[in-house]
Amino acid sequence: MNRERLMQRFSSMAEIGQTDRGGVNRLALTEMDKQARDLLWKWSEEIGLSVRVDDFGNIYARLEGEKVDYKPVVLGSHLDSVPYGGKFDGTLGVLVGLELMETIIEEGKTPERPLELAVFTNEEGARFPTPMLGSGAVTGVFTKEHVYNMKDDDGVRFEDALVKIGYVGDSFNRVTEVEAFIELHIEQGPVLESKGVPVGIVNGIQGLSWHSVQFFGEAGHAGTTPLHHRKDPLISSVKAIQRIHDWVMNLEDETIVTFGKIGTASNTINVVSNSATFSLDIRHPDHSKLLSRIEKVKRLIREVALEDDTESLCEDLSYMTPVSFDPGLSELLSNACRKHNVDFSEIVSGAGHDAMYMNRIGKTVMVFAPSRAGKSHCEEEDTSWEDIEKAGKVMEDTVKRLAFSTESVKS
Amino acid sequence: MNRERLMQRFSSMAEIGQTDRGGVNRLALTEMDKQARDLLWKWSEEIGLSVRVDDFGNIYARLEGEKVDYKPVVLGSHLDSVPYGGKFDGTLGVLVGLELMETIIEEGKTPERPLELAVFTNEEGARFPTPMLGSGAVTGVFTKEHVYNMKDDDGVRFEDALVKIGYVGDSFNRVTEVEAFIELHIEQGPVLESKGVPVGIVNGIQGLSWHSVQFFGEAGHAGTTPLHHRKDPLISSVKAIQRIHDWVMNLEDETIVTFGKIGTASNTINVVSNSATFSLDIRHPDHSKLLSRIEKVKRLIREVALEDDTESLCEDLSYMTPVSFDPGLSELLSNACRKHNVDFSEIVSGAGHDAMYMNRIGKTVMVFAPSRAGKSHCEEEDTSWEDIEKAGKVMEDTVKRLAFSTESVKS
Repeated sequence: MNRERLMQRFSSMAEIGQTDRGGVNRLALTEMDKQARDLLWKWSEEIGLSVRVDDFGNIYARLEGEKVDYKPVVLGSHLDSVPYGGKFDGTLGVLVGLELMETIIEEGKTPERPLELAVFTNEEGARFPTPMLGSGAVTGVFTKEHVYNMKDDDGVRFEDALVKIGYVGDSFNRVTEVEAFIELHIEQGPVLESKGVPVGIVNGIQGLSWHSVQFFGEAGHAGTTPLHHRKDPLISSVKAIQRIHDWVMNLEDETIVTFGKIGTASNTINVVSNSATFSLDIRHPDHSKLLSRIEKVKRLIREVALEDDTESLCEDLSYMTPVSFDPGLSELLSNACRKHNVDFSEIVSGAGHDAMYMNRIGKTVMVFAPSRAGKSHCEEEDTSWEDIEKAGKVMEDTVKRLAFSTESVKS
Repeated sequence: MNRERLMQRFSSMAEIGQTDRGGVNRLALTEMDKQARDLLWKWSEEIGLSVRVDDFGNIYARLEGEKVDYKPVVLGSHLDSVPYGGKFDGTLGVLVGLELMETIIEEGKTPERPLELAVFTNEEGARFPTPMLGSGAVTGVFTKEHVYNMKDDDGVRFEDALVKIGYVGDSFNRVTEVEAFIELHIEQGPVLESKGVPVGIVNGIQGLSWHSVQFFGEAGHAGTTPLHHRKDPLISSVKAIQRIHDWVMNLEDETIVTFGKIGTASNTINVVSNSATFSLDIRHPDHSKLLSRIEKVKRLIREVALEDDTESLCEDLSYMTPVSFDPGLSELLSNACRKHNVDFSEIVSGAGHDAMYMNRIGKTVMVFAPSRAGKSHCEEEDTSWEDIEKAGKVMEDTVKRLAFSTESVKS
């Protein structure tokens, strides 16, 4: 692959929706998103790819293979951003995909299998509230009716926004089955950087479970109720949070727990509230282990309520099953790393990605590039070009291995 | 004193602003407050007291003494309530005061000193936001300009509300100096009930200090930032709260601490916030001990920040110096308890009362009657008439001892 060419395209793309501090504002199906799509379309046609759009605005740029009816090898990600997001998130996967296809074209040999570059609509869920909307729609997760009628904060329907930027394609254009889907993405966390490895081979995506935990006690006056007379639900909450946090820390495994929201019902400086609530976000890459973690956490909560003579309630809000990527593809990638002497680390994704849904219609894997200081979804987001080049080289090897063979990779 | 007569008056008064569940809605200077004032005025004149009103709407009903220019012995409290408050808070002190004056009148002997019943305006701070406004104004804490221009939530000025209910009196009518002020009030906490004593002799009012504590860490994604990579300000907050709470519990003294408000800046289920804030309300009856408690708590907060590699900030919001009541008056009350074989307990008030400001213009003491289950500022507020009668008897003895003597009580 040609690093200079990639960097030039990257910097042109980063100008679309650029913010003062070097990030991008490129919400899905806005004028900025349209400009980014148009530019990608132009580049794709310039290098000889045939471009099509499906009815969700997902774009596919295809390099035909010798065997036209073989399932394609697909690369890609998304071009939309969160508000004041970074220039690497999504875009990097799209442009490295394009670069790898141009590299193969330049080498002059037609691959056996078709190669496609995919750009999915509204991955961030920042404009239309469901993330990974385009990839979810095309893989049978969301109905067309649901997607088309989804509204942004200003009440604009998805379909109307799609029509407005001129990206309504035909449902026949949807991707249906893939031989392999490979998505390069920035890690969005600090793990690879702290380990000092340039490439992460992603084994899967953590499952997550969201809960609302409530403790009920007895309201009291801050001045007239001595501590040993209180049933203070905030004190129970604090105790439960610390107990859960300590337990997870001591596990020293892949369990992650976050308490993002907390509050008391009275929210008044001189009142012991009769109830307090906090949110619980718990994640693990393995389904049955995640379930057992949730059970343990619920037990810890009940334990605190029992000790404090308060009442507890742990409401389940949502559950996302962990996703396992294809071991055969992981192996191809790790072999490529060894061949090119590139250090790598197996890693689990903590965030959702289009690959999560693409995994439903074919073998899928992801490659992570390190995020500087783990920063993501902010203007400071950064990844070094040395690392990107290493990821690109490893992917190039893997993509060629898949595209120039009529055999399926063994999982 | 005549318990039946007191109970009848109490039940008539409780009808004014009565709520469905037996509480009262009688916010200061509303039509309901006017009706309560009018009724008290009528009763006072019926038993031969001369009623006057000062320029803050405070009402005084006077029984003249033999020595008309001696400082009066004053009883009283307030008639206003919080929204959906209880029928005992304030009203009990006013009506027991009236009952004691009628008892003395019925016995036919003119006291040496004048006796006065005082009803103070806007004690609760529930309509006009400063509590104990009438007693604070008349004892030189608040200027007339400040009080008159204070507005309620609807923008109505104090002065206009006072004019509307017809309770603007003359500044010459203000209480200036008192020989003694004795305020009977419900405890508003669970201490007396749990000790099983019917009477609390109040030594003083706790000082309090309010703070806003903030921890600063690093924002992170709930899925991509492993626990040991985080600087989670909520975890620091939780640790600090628990450490402060445990420390105060182990002190086993009169220190009380409350964490009434807590929150994260991002307030989002899947985000590690970059900052978290909680409120700290700390109380102690002794000024220098309160200051040393505050210093220790601040040290504990800095300690947690140091351990967690987060930053902390403890902002001082307000400070109220502890108030000590008159030991001579306490002794008179405890002697009266012993004489009548009434169990009592010395107690410190956790809440502010009009007596706090009256303490500035004369010897002051309070008597507490037990609150059922410690409930206060709610419709369930309750106190037994057996306990009220005991408090009344003890006060009667003390008031007579003060009013029928020309000697001042020794502090």
